[in-house]
Amino acid sequence: MSGSTLGKLFCVTVFGESHGPAIGCVVDGCPPGMLLTEADIQFDLDRRKPGTSRHVTQRQESDTAEILSGVFEGRTTGTPIALLIRNEDQRSKDYGNIAATFRPGHADYSYTQKYGLRDYRGGGRSSARLTAPIVGAGAIAKKWLREKYGVTIRGYMSALGPLDIPFESWDEVGNNAFFSPSASIVPQLEAYMDALRKSGDSVGARITIVAENVPAGLGEPLYDKLDADLAHALMGLNAVKGVEIGDGMQAARQKGTEHRDELTPQGFLSNHAGGVLGGISSGQDVVAHIAIKPTSSIRLPGQSIDLHGNPIEVVTHGRHDPCVGIRATPIAEALMAIVIMDHALRHRAQCGDVHSGTPRVPAKP
Amino acid sequence: MSGSTLGKLFCVTVFGESHGPAIGCVVDGCPPGMLLTEADIQFDLDRRKPGTSRHVTQRQESDTAEILSGVFEGRTTGTPIALLIRNEDQRSKDYGNIAATFRPGHADYSYTQKYGLRDYRGGGRSSARLTAPIVGAGAIAKKWLREKYGVTIRGYMSALGPLDIPFESWDEVGNNAFFSPSASIVPQLEAYMDALRKSGDSVGARITIVAENVPAGLGEPLYDKLDADLAHALMGLNAVKGVEIGDGMQAARQKGTEHRDELTPQGFLSNHAGGVLGGISSGQDVVAHIAIKPTSSIRLPGQSIDLHGNPIEVVTHGRHDPCVGIRATPIAEALMAIVIMDHALRHRAQCGDVHSGTPRVPAKP
Amino acid sequence: MSGSTLGKLFCVTVFGESHGPAIGCVVDGCPPGMLLTEADIQFDLDRRKPGTSRHVTQRQESDTAEILSGVFEGRTTGTPIALLIRNEDQRSKDYGNIAATFRPGHADYSYTQKYGLRDYRGGGRSSARLTAPIVGAGAIAKKWLREKYGVTIRGYMSALGPLDIPFESWDEVGNNAFFSPSASIVPQLEAYMDALRKSGDSVGARITIVAENVPAGLGEPLYDKLDADLAHALMGLNAVKGVEIGDGMQAARQKGTEHRDELTPQGFLSNHAGGVLGGISSGQDVVAHIAIKPTSSIRLPGQSIDLHGNPIEVVTHGRHDPCVGIRATPIAEALMAIVIMDHALRHRAQCGDVHSGTPRVPAKP
Amino acid sequence: MSGSTLGKLFCVTVFGESHGPAIGCVVDGCPPGMLLTEADIQFDLDRRKPGTSRHVTQRQESDTAEILSGVFEGRTTGTPIALLIRNEDQRSKDYGNIAATFRPGHADYSYTQKYGLRDYRGGGRSSARLTAPIVGAGAIAKKWLREKYGVTIRGYMSALGPLDIPFESWDEVGNNAFFSPSASIVPQLEAYMDALRKSGDSVGARITIVAENVPAGLGEPLYDKLDADLAHALMGLNAVKGVEIGDGMQAARQKGTEHRDELTPQGFLSNHAGGVLGGISSGQDVVAHIAIKPTSSIRLPGQSIDLHGNPIEVVTHGRHDPCVGIRATPIAEALMAIVIMDHALRHRAQCGDVHSGTPRVPAKP
Repeated sequence: MSGSTLGKLFCVTVFGESHGPAIGCVVDGCPPGMLLTEADIQFDLDRRKPGTSRHVTQRQESDTAEILSGVFEGRTTGTPIALLIRNEDQRSKDYGNIAATFRPGHADYSYTQKYGLRDYRGGGRSSARLTAPIVGAGAIAKKWLREKYGVTIRGYMSALGPLDIPFESWDEVGNNAFFSPSASIVPQLEAYMDALRKSGDSVGARITIVAENVPAGLGEPLYDKLDADLAHALMGLNAVKGVEIGDGMQAARQKGTEHRDELTPQGFLSNHAGGVLGGISSGQDVVAHIAIKPTSSIRLPGQSIDLHGNPIEVVTHGRHDPCVGIRATPIAEALMAIVIMDHALRHRAQCGDVHSGTPRVPAKP
Repeated sequence: MSGSTLGKLFCVTVFGESHGPAIGCVVDGCPPGMLLTEADIQFDLDRRKPGTSRHVTQRQESDTAEILSGVFEGRTTGTPIALLIRNEDQRSKDYGNIAATFRPGHADYSYTQKYGLRDYRGGGRSSARLTAPIVGAGAIAKKWLREKYGVTIRGYMSALGPLDIPFESWDEVGNNAFFSPSASIVPQLEAYMDALRKSGDSVGARITIVAENVPAGLGEPLYDKLDADLAHALMGLNAVKGVEIGDGMQAARQKGTEHRDELTPQGFLSNHAGGVLGGISSGQDVVAHIAIKPTSSIRLPGQSIDLHGNPIEVVTHGRHDPCVGIRATPIAEALMAIVIMDHALRHRAQCGDVHSGTPRVPAKP
Repeated sequence: MSGSTLGKLFCVTVFGESHGPAIGCVVDGCPPGMLLTEADIQFDLDRRKPGTSRHVTQRQESDTAEILSGVFEGRTTGTPIALLIRNEDQRSKDYGNIAATFRPGHADYSYTQKYGLRDYRGGGRSSARLTAPIVGAGAIAKKWLREKYGVTIRGYMSALGPLDIPFESWDEVGNNAFFSPSASIVPQLEAYMDALRKSGDSVGARITIVAENVPAGLGEPLYDKLDADLAHALMGLNAVKGVEIGDGMQAARQKGTEHRDELTPQGFLSNHAGGVLGGISSGQDVVAHIAIKPTSSIRLPGQSIDLHGNPIEVVTHGRHDPCVGIRATPIAEALMAIVIMDHALRHRAQCGDVHSGTPRVPAKP
Repeated sequence: MSGSTLGKLFCVTVFGESHGPAIGCVVDGCPPGMLLTEADIQFDLDRRKPGTSRHVTQRQESDTAEILSGVFEGRTTGTPIALLIRNEDQRSKDYGNIAATFRPGHADYSYTQKYGLRDYRGGGRSSARLTAPIVGAGAIAKKWLREKYGVTIRGYMSALGPLDIPFESWDEVGNNAFFSPSASIVPQLEAYMDALRKSGDSVGARITIVAENVPAGLGEPLYDKLDADLAHALMGLNAVKGVEIGDGMQAARQKGTEHRDELTPQGFLSNHAGGVLGGISSGQDVVAHIAIKPTSSIRLPGQSIDLHGNPIEVVTHGRHDPCVGIRATPIAEALMAIVIMDHALRHRAQCGDVHSGTPRVPAKP
């Protein structure tokens, strides 16, 4: 199976390069009969798109998705849905100087060793621009999950470099450029980013994603656990270096009495597990955290080599996000939506006749 | 593709339950012509097997693997290699009392909601016992990677609950029951575990796995990145709640100048990336860390419900590892070996003719 | 995905060689809660097993399947079902003389070119013995399809070499060694086979398989059409050289007015299509025919080469079916059952909510 | 894995409907570094396109493919190659009258039962128009196979309804509208088609495809045999009802002495097997035949029902091929190329180190 396809039943195949004619994806396996318009997709694409604040890249892309197939008279037909986004603001000449250079922290060196050549313009295939089609596909999954099961999938920034961001309210997330759930910390985030841009450096971030109302029973024991597939999808996002489910890495420090989530008829008493037990959703909120590394494209010089192995000094120009984490929230939401939808379909394939007979425990008491 | 199969070209399909007649796996896609005997597999199985120290479960299993197919006159034939391990020390009656009970932190509740019934004996399919066949399959992958590319895959325990374990030497790892790379800390680990067992509680652990001499170029840009597939496999291991590549979650705190690994003709100057750039191996050591949650089976009582939704108090008897992390090192090694081998085969399928023309940068200066 | 796995959601992974310790399979994806015992599987295994008449190989195998996993207290649990069949009557020494010889029409030459070595005992992996696990897996699929949808899958021999066998009655099929649906032709078939055995030659056969009560809607437009997946599975059976759906190759000769199956509210007026329209089941009987080539292992000498390329004369001894088609009927039934079950699960994954609103047309008026 | 993807390592995912904005495909897994331009693809697209003779549909489509990704500075980069073909000559109003009608022999009824709705314009997803992207993808596979192994893949029409077409010369195939390898029979074919069009009826055809210089060793024993995957791909082509490899259905009539292909150091003495032994290529020509049913869209009235189950009479207007087999040759070539390429990549993944030590037998003496 090709490496560019995500999902087994709800399958998203992405294509395109940062400075080629277009990017897009084919979404195969969507259930038929769902109302779907380009507006449904555009909402999340706009949340992700560049150029919307001074803290992100100034590349100007409308990121308008055209639906090429799979929708007829406003409804999905069950056949592949192709989404096409034309690249509009390529400045390939910005990248001529990196054609023969391996930028540290970038995929330049590993791509060249793998393929023997690479489309170096704007990072080519390794560009975060390729996350736009994912957001489009995720919007379809979100819509289906919401309509079918009432699932809500939302994310927020939980840390920007050294600054921890407390969760205050979902309502705030849409009110600032950072997807911060705290309004009061926003001035601090802005000051931090302004100083960072001035310094020429970049910074990492931590994003938290939560899916509510996920039915119990999604995921498979081995190996396609719900959390394993979430880890696959989220670690597959550009620049992600760590994935945690529930308490995540902290679980290594805990005792059994601390970690286990007790059940009562009124609800689970805690959610250290992040909504997944033995790889299968428990009906609690599915919670994941990811760490996004600092952008490798920075103005400060660094050592590297050129195509012939000679030492050189690299300084990256062009338009870059000083913190790619800032735009990562809608992408991580989309990835979680795709994985959960895939497992919702897989579950009803195998277990469509199951009636457990056991009452569902509420997510919270 | 079925949820019980790991890998796309080097495919491992695992079967079995903790207290059924047998567990095992089918390894499909192994290159032909490699010398392989049961002894090659048994070495790692013995490193994982229970009952070898007072700090792990006292269940007595020889974990002897029989090769049923795919090997002829001592060599792999290229056809599926089936491994069979008979269960020997089932005490199913120990588990009769959990048939109608959902143990907190276990898969009991989520399995029942998914399937409507479950094999409750010893956790059934969700038992860590199912990791034995993985270790067998991993031994095959390790052998091929070693012979073909000189790859070495090794792991160690890097934290036991609150105790950080410093890396001192690979040589120590095999000398103690914990896979600790430090000899001097072992008495502390033993004392901690003795007190823990006495208390009836359990604890988490952190495991680190390192693959050396991995060729540059393994992995695919989207979505089957080498690190994404490692995250999938490792998060798929029982009790894992977090996966980190290189600096992992810490990358969220770093600046670009800290994180990026500069290149010189003499070697990479650091390895914050953990050997993967843009999803593709760089030739540096591939480094992953996992957090393993504390065992959910503990003697201390906890709240739960029964099959009918009535509140109950759960106390788990039977033979359990008070820290499942102790036996996790060889399993995590096996999973990393399977993923790297799968990508080695995928890489030469697509890129078997590539000669990059660019010199390889040494892993270290 | 591995080459030894059939099916995408109902996945059958087969292992073993003709003269190794055992053969078997892992069936992953079976819905939970179905009653299943070894007797359910043994019935079809006995229909396929060797040594039951003078017209087939005299190898003595009980072909007893042991269920190793996936069944608990008599019901499927939804986890992988492993089936194990020990080889009992290996006479590997019969095959020593073919170790360095490529038998014409056999896989000896192509396996050696592919893998560089081969398990030559009894054909190794290429032996028709490997169809036993398929029959076991097919029995599980048949049972589920019957209980869930009332599907019946049955086959018969429709030609033995030059002898066409008219369809008279399903009742006769089980009454003779040939799976002939005509009783009156059996003496002719026996005389033909007796003369053939005496001559030392072998012969081909044509098998017809019919699935009744298949729900409309199974299959996917491109490329996993129901008929395409049937063709894959059936052409994958040893010795099959042709697969037809409905009128099959004859469709090339027909006019549109002859071929199209007209619909009336009382039922379809004909079934030239063999139950599949545009790759999707129509609710009519799914009908397939296969051509099985004559056994390549014959006593009459033939030209070939040895491992070093030298010309030799080959005469095949050992125990062989003079017409492998005679035992093929239950195998072809099993393959059709596996494919239809796989698509039944795939269909409800994607289209579980569909209510077409259009009345179902009866299969026949 | 999604039903719209063909191939496991060389993966083609097709999207689009007959009268939607566009059709196309994503080709994932192509080796990097191959020269590729749109002209390389257009050649075969032009062989397939409609409107080029009076014997095919008069729909006017330029079928111009745009490469959206995966090619940089004229070479493949190893990343997905997206091909886009805009639909230009939709006359959807021609199809308004079939919106509520099930045309006999078409997918209208089965799609509606599966999905609950369908894009009825020109057959929507079930239109033979969807074969254009396949031809594009096949052109890429053909080029790689030719450059890497010297493989040639060519086809011809071997029967048009009742008229058998003798093979005379590959040179003739491109000189007539039928892909006939005999020049002398062309006037007969034209006369037959002219009379057929006048009558309002349609007719079937038989196509033969041959791949030369295929390396020995491609394919897997079970179940992804080379011939099984060819059967899957070819039976997946619209209107195909039968697939034969080598002697095909005729093998059921043969004796072992007739069918087996003897080997000599100077070459195989015959090719009844069609180049595949035990599912693996033998180095002989790979030969397949397919039967294509007569077009279901005909002017002559037929019985059917409407969406509500009421009896109606159907007469199909619009622009249709009276024999879809006429344009099928380049499509079948493309499918064979995709399958062989997929297996070439799969083979070197697993067996890249094999040196059989046995001399290759020439395809012919």
